Amino acid sequence: MSKYAVIGYGVVGSGTVELFEKNRDSITNKIGRDVKLGYILDLRDFPDSPYGNIHTKDFNDILNDPEVEAVAEVIGGIHPSFEFTKQLLQKGKSVVTSNKELVAQKGAELFEVARKNNANYLFEASVGGGIPIIRPLHKCLAGNKIEQISGILNGTTNFILTKMIKDQMSFSDALRLAQENGFAEADPTADIEGHDACRKICILASLALGKQIYPEDAYCEGISKITPEDVEYARNAGYKIKLIGSAYPTEGGKLSVTVCPRLIPEDNLLSHVDGVYNAISVTGNGVGDVVFYGQGAGKLPTASAVVGDLIDALLHRERPLTVSWEKSDGENLISDYKQSKTAAFIKVSVKGDADEARESISKTFDHPMFIERQNRPDSEVAFITAPMKEILIDQKLGLLDENIEILNLIRVL
Amino acid sequence: MSKYAVIGYGVVGSGTVELFEKNRDSITNKIGRDVKLGYILDLRDFPDSPYGNIHTKDFNDILNDPEVEAVAEVIGGIHPSFEFTKQLLQKGKSVVTSNKELVAQKGAELFEVARKNNANYLFEASVGGGIPIIRPLHKCLAGNKIEQISGILNGTTNFILTKMIKDQMSFSDALRLAQENGFAEADPTADIEGHDACRKICILASLALGKQIYPEDAYCEGISKITPEDVEYARNAGYKIKLIGSAYPTEGGKLSVTVCPRLIPEDNLLSHVDGVYNAISVTGNGVGDVVFYGQGAGKLPTASAVVGDLIDALLHRERPLTVSWEKSDGENLISDYKQSKTAAFIKVSVKGDADEARESISKTFDHPMFIERQNRPDSEVAFITAPMKEILIDQKLGLLDENIEILNLIRVL
Repeated sequence: MSKYAVIGYGVVGSGTVELFEKNRDSITNKIGRDVKLGYILDLRDFPDSPYGNIHTKDFNDILNDPEVEAVAEVIGGIHPSFEFTKQLLQKGKSVVTSNKELVAQKGAELFEVARKNNANYLFEASVGGGIPIIRPLHKCLAGNKIEQISGILNGTTNFILTKMIKDQMSFSDALRLAQENGFAEADPTADIEGHDACRKICILASLALGKQIYPEDAYCEGISKITPEDVEYARNAGYKIKLIGSAYPTEGGKLSVTVCPRLIPEDNLLSHVDGVYNAISVTGNGVGDVVFYGQGAGKLPTASAVVGDLIDALLHRERPLTVSWEKSDGENLISDYKQSKTAAFIKVSVKGDADEARESISKTFDHPMFIERQNRPDSEVAFITAPMKEILIDQKLGLLDENIEILNLIRVL
Repeated sequence: MSKYAVIGYGVVGSGTVELFEKNRDSITNKIGRDVKLGYILDLRDFPDSPYGNIHTKDFNDILNDPEVEAVAEVIGGIHPSFEFTKQLLQKGKSVVTSNKELVAQKGAELFEVARKNNANYLFEASVGGGIPIIRPLHKCLAGNKIEQISGILNGTTNFILTKMIKDQMSFSDALRLAQENGFAEADPTADIEGHDACRKICILASLALGKQIYPEDAYCEGISKITPEDVEYARNAGYKIKLIGSAYPTEGGKLSVTVCPRLIPEDNLLSHVDGVYNAISVTGNGVGDVVFYGQGAGKLPTASAVVGDLIDALLHRERPLTVSWEKSDGENLISDYKQSKTAAFIKVSVKGDADEARESISKTFDHPMFIERQNRPDSEVAFITAPMKEILIDQKLGLLDENIEILNLIRVL
């Protein structure tokens, strides 16, 4: 009897079991044989679980059962996920995962172990929750050269920004509301500082480039500095502010990979993605722009991707799929973001004559677009620059009068 | 030497060759071996083509060359596409296609031939042009029961409706503009009457259900009766009018499958899909709502899907993939649309007292929402009903005063 197992019985793990068992008939039909739930591994006790008889605290139960063909690793973090995954793959068992941290750090190594052992390591759930993006990017768009990927990759920050945009809330009030609704963790750092989105854009960038891109090499900036006034300026200029993970090829086989808040023009579909939803825009040299939209987190949406991968792994027994990338051998494949071109929204505070400051800004930035907001203090000036290398923006800001203080800079998509 | 061939050197065929050859390096890398362009079949002459040496007018050149592994059939129509495809599959050659007519009519039969001969028949390009939808629906969402699929599946009609919505154009002016821009054919019937969208929703419905659904069994209504006044009423009530192909399971293993104009609420992402773009929304019992968006037609976008399928076919030589459905053995699997629930926008003309007509409508429809437009003639009344079985709407309309004439009925999504 073929079996699957689930490692980690938290939100995603219990959702995986729930969805697989609920849709068991159609899933069995798709796999073409019956595959039963063999083990649930978790160090906690679940006295009320209907699966009590298959709960285990011993990883070796799964590792050493030859009937286990595929395992969902949904504990997250690097350890012991990495060791578990590696050992399972070495035994020829396929592993599917929602663990973006592990895929972003150790993907290439684990793909290699999988390939050598005729197993699969699949990770559709690691980016965008239930949104199909890994397979579409790798398979359906295989005929394209990927020119850019931009996405709203984190539901927590998108919920916060949506509340700031639609209900004029402050960042801290919106964060509190997200926490009350279970959309943000008690320690929200990984979300609001962009680390979660950074892992995800690095996974997409690695897949597009074919080589491992590490999150620590990417420029990453969160949303905690965004104010309701920035949101209002952006609205008046026809933009919404979103946290965007972005990747595109630059010179010399490198990629620009960044996570930061960006102004999105209202005719871009990403500007209409609200609340905890995610969306990923991909541009290929054949297909043009395509966008994938859906719930980027949550129990059943993420389980949807995990179960889809389980089905694929069980269908492709001993036939490794090609959804993977190679090691980058210590090479930093990310180009210096300061060399990338961008337009920027800049808000400054002026000590002294605001008109003189505007003149200084106008001269330095060569036709910036000044923007307004209600009740703007005379001492505040906001403008959007033309697109230019970011290092040039820095230089120009350095040339401004000394009585001009930079309050915020938000890039434009 | 492995070869691929292209049958039909029109817009999609030439785009397929262009994209494959432009991205040859990365494609070769993905396939893991060199595959050269063996033949281009077309009955016309292409004296200036750089591929003159491989143009042929004889299908047997392709059929009988054992080095040809995969063929792109992009001529469209049923004959001779069907015969070509069947013969190629019988020889164990994989076929990939953008031919929605053929897939919607003969899919099940061709999948069976493919399976028996260890070949693949792939059709990502048949729905949504370059938008990845077939594989995501079949693979990534395999863990779900599909609860509904709704899509803007035809770029021509979406361009026309967008012009009617954004520029207050009449249907006929917008159609003319579409023709001038090359977005509509000289005979636009298949697009504006919904036949093209109907083939596409039937392909998606067949894939979701696992059995062949025929376009002629589906309810299909086009957009030629939509007026600028309807558009204005819809706007004032917070909706946009879009041509929507829609499918969802009803009782007894059947599906509701319809194509018709629908009012889309403005908080639905589909309402923001403008111009020649397509978008498909899928709801699964795990994933919730996901939306796929992009260019639904055009040379390189469609070629992107064709080339993606060619790569997959070349990768899966002699290993049939499972993207397919079974025959339905003459059974009509589509349920009666009159038994489906919907709300409806209804516009009537009143001979006599409009207030009395409103009263009659209010009584009969139990709290309809009356809506207004600028310069509405006194004799015109427009309202939106509550959701109810469509047959009940018909019955209620029959009960209205005789001096009330129905001008238009548009369903609400």
